Amino acid sequence: MTGKVYLVGSGPGDPELLTVKARRLLDEADVVLHDKLPGPEIIESVPEERRIDVGKRAHGDRTPQSEINERLVELARDGKTVVRLKGGDAFVFGRGGEEMLYLADHEVPFEVVPGVTSAVAAPGVAGIPATHREHASSVSFVTGHEDPAKEESAVNWEALAATEGTIVVLMGVTRLPDYTAALREAGMDPETPVALVERATRSGQTVATGTLDTIVERRDEVGIEPPAVTVIGGVAGIREEVVRWLDE
Amino acid sequence: MTGKVYLVGSGPGDPELLTVKARRLLDEADVVLHDKLPGPEIIESVPEERRIDVGKRAHGDRTPQSEINERLVELARDGKTVVRLKGGDAFVFGRGGEEMLYLADHEVPFEVVPGVTSAVAAPGVAGIPATHREHASSVSFVTGHEDPAKEESAVNWEALAATEGTIVVLMGVTRLPDYTAALREAGMDPETPVALVERATRSGQTVATGTLDTIVERRDEVGIEPPAVTVIGGVAGIREEVVRWLDE
Repeated sequence: MTGKVYLVGSGPGDPELLTVKARRLLDEADVVLHDKLPGPEIIESVPEERRIDVGKRAHGDRTPQSEINERLVELARDGKTVVRLKGGDAFVFGRGGEEMLYLADHEVPFEVVPGVTSAVAAPGVAGIPATHREHASSVSFVTGHEDPAKEESAVNWEALAATEGTIVVLMGVTRLPDYTAALREAGMDPETPVALVERATRSGQTVATGTLDTIVERRDEVGIEPPAVTVIGGVAGIREEVVRWLDE
Repeated sequence: MTGKVYLVGSGPGDPELLTVKARRLLDEADVVLHDKLPGPEIIESVPEERRIDVGKRAHGDRTPQSEINERLVELARDGKTVVRLKGGDAFVFGRGGEEMLYLADHEVPFEVVPGVTSAVAAPGVAGIPATHREHASSVSFVTGHEDPAKEESAVNWEALAATEGTIVVLMGVTRLPDYTAALREAGMDPETPVALVERATRSGQTVATGTLDTIVERRDEVGIEPPAVTVIGGVAGIREEVVRWLDE
């Protein structure tokens, strides 16, 4: 009897932002495969004997994706109920799609358990609505940490600027100077508000705000480090209006 | 002593997709203000004497937003712990931003509790990853149910098409013919996969798939009705590859 794999999003980091279903599955699963992205509090809530860290190997290497895929299939074929735990949502820049395709290709039953993505949660807890009728009719998520195998032009910053919606960049601390420059070149107003939210919903949450022109300097002044989410657009300016009454 | 307002996302409808924190706050709050979007299962999990339906008034009218804002402030000034419960996430086309600004303006302490947005969950549970390295470097959320006060051109479909990322349209069943035509006119390949997910994560979940060219016909054949989410882009084609092994 083949078991089953649950592709589960762990949310942005606060253990209380797990879904009720994710919490139940973590408590019931035979085995939980995770990397470090869900954060220590959530990982350590699973007894050590039921979890496997697939995020690291000896000598500091990362486990190749192919090996994680094979491990999932092996465990399911052993009849196990397996949770594959991913930071945020498994399908928002989480490579969950690749794992799902591999499972189906190997005839392993699976289920998807959506999670709270940091792309929405990080702005939200900082008092920044992803959309607002006066500021943004759309919100777009991109990653600042491009797949090196891709062409540099994979993200079309010009088109994103033209949407006039909110832009949320995940994993975008290091390349902040590159894409803020690309957006300015695409004609985006240099006064457009920008916010950086580091370690959203976790202890040590830190926010820096500025504009497309000043945010790189502000990043360095405040000392924002990965993991952080970048929010670009009129909505990022709302934080200043509400922060005094916001419990963060 | 002023109380506090929690702006809480209820997720896509399945009560198990509430966050642990949302569940706790619903159980502990003095009063829960809601409309019908969170769905009957979640709403009825709160004892009747602790909830207020602000989604409807006598004669079938909708409660004006200004009245909801005032109610939140009054209850908090009465010292109450108030949950303002929103479908999905309060800040993804949920008007949570307006409520937050009103609370801050009236010096009412508040906290934001992010939820699982249907924009990610609906594709996900249907076996459609919002992003995939081979298909989409970005994902954009828009609403098909435009604010009538806005110019028709508020959503720039041409720019969205140019991103070459996944496009997710919330509340987009009725206007499907309009924006699929707009995307074709913007040069998007008519063979681009499109999926409609009705009542995602709730009983009666239904999925229809097609292409930019065929999806309106498929909508009518399958009988897709609101509420539903539209997913446009290469990722929508992944469902067919995995659906046999997917527990929905």
